[in-house]
Amino acid sequence: MAAHQPKLGAMSVMERTVKLGRDDPRRIIHSLKVGLALTFVSLLYYWRPLYDGFGIAAIWAVLTVVVIFEFTVGATLSKGLNRGLGTLLAGALGVGAQHFASLFGQTGEPIVLGFFVFLLAAASTFSRFFPRIKARYDYGVLIFILTFSLVSVSGYRVEKILELAHQRLSTILIGGATCIFISLFICPVWAGESLHNIIVSNIEKLANYLEGFGVEYFQYEDGENVDEDSKHNKLSSLQAYKTVLTSQSSEESLANFASWEPRHGKFSFRHPWKQYLKIGSLTRQCAYQIESLNGYINVPTDIQVAIQFRRRIEESCNAISSESGKALRILASSIKTMTNPSSSSKTHIENATAAIDELKNTLKTGYMESSDLLGIIPDATVCCILIDIVKSVEKILEAIEELGVLASFKSVEPTVSPEKSTQLLHRGIVNPLFDGECGDHVVIMVDNEVEVGKSHGLEVKPSNGEMVCK
Amino acid sequence: MAAHQPKLGAMSVMERTVKLGRDDPRRIIHSLKVGLALTFVSLLYYWRPLYDGFGIAAIWAVLTVVVIFEFTVGATLSKGLNRGLGTLLAGALGVGAQHFASLFGQTGEPIVLGFFVFLLAAASTFSRFFPRIKARYDYGVLIFILTFSLVSVSGYRVEKILELAHQRLSTILIGGATCIFISLFICPVWAGESLHNIIVSNIEKLANYLEGFGVEYFQYEDGENVDEDSKHNKLSSLQAYKTVLTSQSSEESLANFASWEPRHGKFSFRHPWKQYLKIGSLTRQCAYQIESLNGYINVPTDIQVAIQFRRRIEESCNAISSESGKALRILASSIKTMTNPSSSSKTHIENATAAIDELKNTLKTGYMESSDLLGIIPDATVCCILIDIVKSVEKILEAIEELGVLASFKSVEPTVSPEKSTQLLHRGIVNPLFDGECGDHVVIMVDNEVEVGKSHGLEVKPSNGEMVCK
Repeated sequence: MAAHQPKLGAMSVMERTVKLGRDDPRRIIHSLKVGLALTFVSLLYYWRPLYDGFGIAAIWAVLTVVVIFEFTVGATLSKGLNRGLGTLLAGALGVGAQHFASLFGQTGEPIVLGFFVFLLAAASTFSRFFPRIKARYDYGVLIFILTFSLVSVSGYRVEKILELAHQRLSTILIGGATCIFISLFICPVWAGESLHNIIVSNIEKLANYLEGFGVEYFQYEDGENVDEDSKHNKLSSLQAYKTVLTSQSSEESLANFASWEPRHGKFSFRHPWKQYLKIGSLTRQCAYQIESLNGYINVPTDIQVAIQFRRRIEESCNAISSESGKALRILASSIKTMTNPSSSSKTHIENATAAIDELKNTLKTGYMESSDLLGIIPDATVCCILIDIVKSVEKILEAIEELGVLASFKSVEPTVSPEKSTQLLHRGIVNPLFDGECGDHVVIMVDNEVEVGKSHGLEVKPSNGEMVCK
Repeated sequence: MAAHQPKLGAMSVMERTVKLGRDDPRRIIHSLKVGLALTFVSLLYYWRPLYDGFGIAAIWAVLTVVVIFEFTVGATLSKGLNRGLGTLLAGALGVGAQHFASLFGQTGEPIVLGFFVFLLAAASTFSRFFPRIKARYDYGVLIFILTFSLVSVSGYRVEKILELAHQRLSTILIGGATCIFISLFICPVWAGESLHNIIVSNIEKLANYLEGFGVEYFQYEDGENVDEDSKHNKLSSLQAYKTVLTSQSSEESLANFASWEPRHGKFSFRHPWKQYLKIGSLTRQCAYQIESLNGYINVPTDIQVAIQFRRRIEESCNAISSESGKALRILASSIKTMTNPSSSSKTHIENATAAIDELKNTLKTGYMESSDLLGIIPDATVCCILIDIVKSVEKILEAIEELGVLASFKSVEPTVSPEKSTQLLHRGIVNPLFDGECGDHVVIMVDNEVEVGKSHGLEVKPSNGEMVCK
């Protein structure tokens, strides 16, 4: 962030404003909506008949609008309902406390009231430390304390407490209703939809990385004369995954707001938002792995033995990474379109698994021309992380399938996926061979490697499917 | 979280309350402080002379207390000052707008006022999307919109607008001052101190993990008959590092609040809180690496070749991990006591680097009895991650040294650290050898390995200090 400051400082405020608006035009619309809501409740003042009804209590409508109008519908609803419930409950309790205290006579009343205020304020403040209350009802508890203190304390001086309460409640209702109406019906910004989009775009960012990783990592061969600028741009576009590392808190708050939202668009009232959080957390796990992987990009390898080894694993690693990337891209679009993940995502995972088996065979069978393990350790680590990433992708697939069940995703026609056979046959090295005894494993016979430029003449047996790595 | 729910459900509310209070008694004190502040401002109502002065405007004092009293001093000050500034600025502008609008006559006035309210509300709401304003002045802008609307709109109906403004300002001042006074002088909770403690405890969590890692990872030898329960407890105590992964947002908000706080305890007014964020982010980077490392704990290794390999790297890996852990522990205590990192932290890092060189030599020189690379890949990955962790620890050390300069840490006497020589000599395998040509590198001559049970009879040259791995 510090590195960006000079650039930001040089940009004029105007440029930054335009950029903020252009990045997300909903921000401009939101600002106009707040202006509209405030101007609307100001009518309570300007329009004589209304002012005669509410009087000075109309300020509560203004206050309510300013305080509860939030960016998303869910947040506005959450704050509005919290405010409404908190006010009602505390108002009733406050009036009760005031009546009770008045039994103690002129001297006793303020003492009893003061005691009540102290007790309820302390207890309510403490309740805000409970994580669940903090997450959903924090604002309601705040309003509860506020209203209880106001009502019980005002009641001591103001005679017509019920009329006051009635005026205040109705103006708060007008303010709240205005916000909710404008928020719901004028270009609504749904927290649920935003969460949905964030999850999709996070998975896509990982897919981008994985699809681009192979070219980036194995560029030693033809990448010598690539100009630095385009290399830099490419690298920084890959780095988009880094935002996934820190997306937890925004996902959680969106899921919380989404749970307050009514049915909208493709989403029902009780849409399984929690499952989105689960997918988000698995995505983040995968992003942590990519963060490790990213440490190995652009590490110069001058050692001959390492280059030889890298050439040998290149094809499998490329396949693992790009097939996982493709699987993730299909999974992202499956969430996007709310259809069950198509079988081609599984095909890509199977392709990646086949490539893992291939890689394992490469590793298993007599590589060492030199005994120098040190040079190949970074590459070996990359292999290991890639294998783990495939497992993460499988977990993401499972979570999305669960989401499909919970949210009744549409099914797409089970088509015979042409991709698997053509692609693998095109590479000319894998012949699928179905064996009844293997249960649900697909046994893949690897003949030999032809693409690394020389044949090793080794007989490669099918992997026994053991996952040694992690 | 879902897994904990049955347990939480079974616990009574009372038990949970007691636990919340016991975990952090400052919560109870905070709740009592809020109760006290509210009861205190209620005096404005109960005490006749005060009530005669402020009248109904006294509710603003209650409102202010409820809204700005936060857990830490910094948050309370930030909200209080934001509220004060926002109110003053908006109040002045509001009175101005009201005067200007009155020039347009009875019909024009509400239209001009409505236009102003719309314009300022929309513009201010938009300004809240600027990240810097969002971080520090969000509440101030909210109060600005609120007050501007209230003042300009009330002005249309209320005759004595200046008196109203004066009453309201003084009650807000009373409320704010009460909060700030109680927050500052009764058991204050400093955001800065909390940030300081969180950073220390996060580094300690990583240190714990690294110190415990070796035993956990290499337990195949004597760990067969360890009972499952104690193993589970030990593992879950190691997992404490996981909270570091997601500590970013709380660190950032604490640093923001800390920057509002006056001098307190060991911290001056302009304590370099940003540097704490930098250390926090480096700590988190290291936690990501530990997260990768953690994936390799408790993976069963049945393959003979892997066990052999693991035995061979055990000593070096143990040393790297525990020396990094010790270095981190010393660094944590250096922040804690606000002294410059003692030279023993560097010694531990040097020890870890020496162990890396040892490990590299092990890897470099003719290990492969079998040609099966596959089995040893997880172990190789562990080596690589450990090497990266040492680099992270070095970066943390540098950042803490910078903090020492910025915050004028005390220096401890440079003592000759006995630890390095005794420990390494005790292991009997490393003879430090200083070479003038190597600049700031310490060249370490590794004779041979004696602890793996057999001598390989290899001549091992000092590592050339290249970092092949990342």
